[in-house]
Amino acid sequence: MTDIERLADRAKKASREISNLPEEKKNAALRAISAALRASTDVILAANAEDMAAAEKAGTSPAMLDRLKLTASRIEGMADGVDQVAALPDPTGRLLERTVRPNGLVIEKVSVPLGVIGIIYEARPNVTADAAALCFKSGNAVVLRGGKEAVRSSAAIARVMREALALQGIPADCVCFVEDTSRESAKEMMGLVGRLDVLIPRGGAGLIKSVVENSRVPVIETGVGICHVYVEKTADLETAARIIRNAKCSRPSVCNAAECLLVDKEIAGKFLPMAADALSEYKVELRGDDETRRILPEAKAAVPEDYDTEFLDYILAVKTVSGVDEAIAFIAEHGTGHSEAIVTRDDDCAEKFLREVDAAAVYVNASTRFTDGGEFGLGAELGISTQKLHARGPMGLAELTSSKYLIRGTGQIR
Amino acid sequence: MTDIERLADRAKKASREISNLPEEKKNAALRAISAALRASTDVILAANAEDMAAAEKAGTSPAMLDRLKLTASRIEGMADGVDQVAALPDPTGRLLERTVRPNGLVIEKVSVPLGVIGIIYEARPNVTADAAALCFKSGNAVVLRGGKEAVRSSAAIARVMREALALQGIPADCVCFVEDTSRESAKEMMGLVGRLDVLIPRGGAGLIKSVVENSRVPVIETGVGICHVYVEKTADLETAARIIRNAKCSRPSVCNAAECLLVDKEIAGKFLPMAADALSEYKVELRGDDETRRILPEAKAAVPEDYDTEFLDYILAVKTVSGVDEAIAFIAEHGTGHSEAIVTRDDDCAEKFLREVDAAAVYVNASTRFTDGGEFGLGAELGISTQKLHARGPMGLAELTSSKYLIRGTGQIR
Repeated sequence: MTDIERLADRAKKASREISNLPEEKKNAALRAISAALRASTDVILAANAEDMAAAEKAGTSPAMLDRLKLTASRIEGMADGVDQVAALPDPTGRLLERTVRPNGLVIEKVSVPLGVIGIIYEARPNVTADAAALCFKSGNAVVLRGGKEAVRSSAAIARVMREALALQGIPADCVCFVEDTSRESAKEMMGLVGRLDVLIPRGGAGLIKSVVENSRVPVIETGVGICHVYVEKTADLETAARIIRNAKCSRPSVCNAAECLLVDKEIAGKFLPMAADALSEYKVELRGDDETRRILPEAKAAVPEDYDTEFLDYILAVKTVSGVDEAIAFIAEHGTGHSEAIVTRDDDCAEKFLREVDAAAVYVNASTRFTDGGEFGLGAELGISTQKLHARGPMGLAELTSSKYLIRGTGQIR
Repeated sequence: MTDIERLADRAKKASREISNLPEEKKNAALRAISAALRASTDVILAANAEDMAAAEKAGTSPAMLDRLKLTASRIEGMADGVDQVAALPDPTGRLLERTVRPNGLVIEKVSVPLGVIGIIYEARPNVTADAAALCFKSGNAVVLRGGKEAVRSSAAIARVMREALALQGIPADCVCFVEDTSRESAKEMMGLVGRLDVLIPRGGAGLIKSVVENSRVPVIETGVGICHVYVEKTADLETAARIIRNAKCSRPSVCNAAECLLVDKEIAGKFLPMAADALSEYKVELRGDDETRRILPEAKAAVPEDYDTEFLDYILAVKTVSGVDEAIAFIAEHGTGHSEAIVTRDDDCAEKFLREVDAAAVYVNASTRFTDGGEFGLGAELGISTQKLHARGPMGLAELTSSKYLIRGTGQIR
């Protein structure tokens, strides 16, 4: 048995012990964790300083250094996040369905924890606390394997959480942390069939693709978003300009940001200059088709790959279309099933778009940026699922549960 | 692009065309399919005769020949099954949740088809019609890849279904059939990431294990059942004997049959002879621990593997335990998460067992044989999921759907 197998077995054992823990005990433990995180600020910052020094020495990019860096206020934010999870309702033990069969069997379907959740993530220490809190609240044990640049910070956070759990009389192995950050350890996680109930990758497209393609443990695919905003010919153009600006510019590095603008040819002449104006404040680079460039000569010529790229930057692909059918077909071809929006005043068009676009979240007259657990009212989230199995869209606590059937009889046989 | 990739792409295209088909159209098409199956009895029987001749020549076992063989009445049963699916409610287009957010966004979660479902199954021609009908009713296209011994029968059934669909103006590619039954074709199915939304293996433990371990497409694991009946010391022993007889003997070849009897030591002396008597009619071979053999000298000595074997036969492993805790621990160690039963008159024991046993279906005072879509009131089923992701227990139509969020706004930005 390898070290990671042993770790997963300990997590499995812990998961059995906490699967029926009363809600109050879980909440008390989460509050103990947040208090411990606050009290351990210095220890965590010291570990983070080592990570930062090593990363700087290795010539890490400023953007990555920023994600890696912890401050007292970021640790406070992390602790706050844990407190918020404590305040959410327990997703387990809920009666989902109930039937009394003609033979008298009483069949109930209730929500239960998944068991052990594996999470492979990048060098973002805050994910350690966020993910562990969500898994614990939903009655699951977690095996965390983060990126190597943040390993000291993440290990320190995991250690604080484990100690806080143990002090509450709860198995520390509810939160297991893989200190080995080699490629092999990630590969091994993907092979833990029977030990992990699900594996969730959190990070960039490369990480997600690698986990989806290589894991033999069931995976929930998260996050890649090539999101479109389609401006239909009846749209209120002021609204459309406001929406594309928000969808592109309010936070371009996240998966629910728009990457492509589709515009009906009939209104392109009027709308594209308005859009360009709305985006100019952020110096957004436009990459358009011929029709777009006829109207906006300053736009660059789009190459085919531009319509299949998650820029995560102030770049926007633009295409003119003949109407809602072409827009829907284009999205089917180039979208990633994340978030898609139409701006229109035509109800039939709106309903057609809602019905026919196959994505986790389909919007009428609103920004794609709302695809988020908090914005949807789910509380915290563990990521946005872009697959169709088990969970689709923002994954809150309910998505971290399974169900079981409880059948009460009086001696029935078949 | 390989033939199977091309086939899957055609299924994907068809799945888009039927994802919003009105319920009445789907039901009419299913009734056209059942009529066509009945009208094509001779053609299907002729294809089946060729399969049977080849299988007999190859020295196939009588049990397998029986599963392979079609008769007019079996085809009638198949057509009936399709009619029953037509009579079930449409699982798609259902409003699952609705919220109005403080910013005025109206967020609805609705059920939608999964898209394209791949099914790898064995030489059981009836699965072709059953599975295709369930997938179609839930708005999905299906790619069927059956066992080679039944390929002529299954291909004939698929052809009849496809023709009936086309005559209704519905894309025949909703039902795609892989004629290549080589190992390579199964392997290829498991690699169709992005083309298949889910892969469901239906068959024996070997097939399921191979798919679970090798597929890169998301899998729903079905069916392996090492199910226990635990007779607690307060049990009504007559009831317990009736339940173990039913759970073991009513159909030993299926996954919800019991494979192991656990008995509290305190009542073993009284109960085991009653159980042996109840099982004697079916000449069940008992394989017990030392305590069992002291009470029932005729029982064979169990070897450790007997407690980890799905016998699917008139064989029962027997073990004495010290009480409910040992029973639960034993089931956690040796069960496959399918169906587990306790027989007891102690409510606390019953509730503890329901709470702590981690299986798709947990029974109090009833036979494990009830784990079945029909018995649970779901109508037909596509198998019993023993995994925790997406579906757990009998998979009816609802389990063949996903969801999407529809968000209606009035220009909201974040």
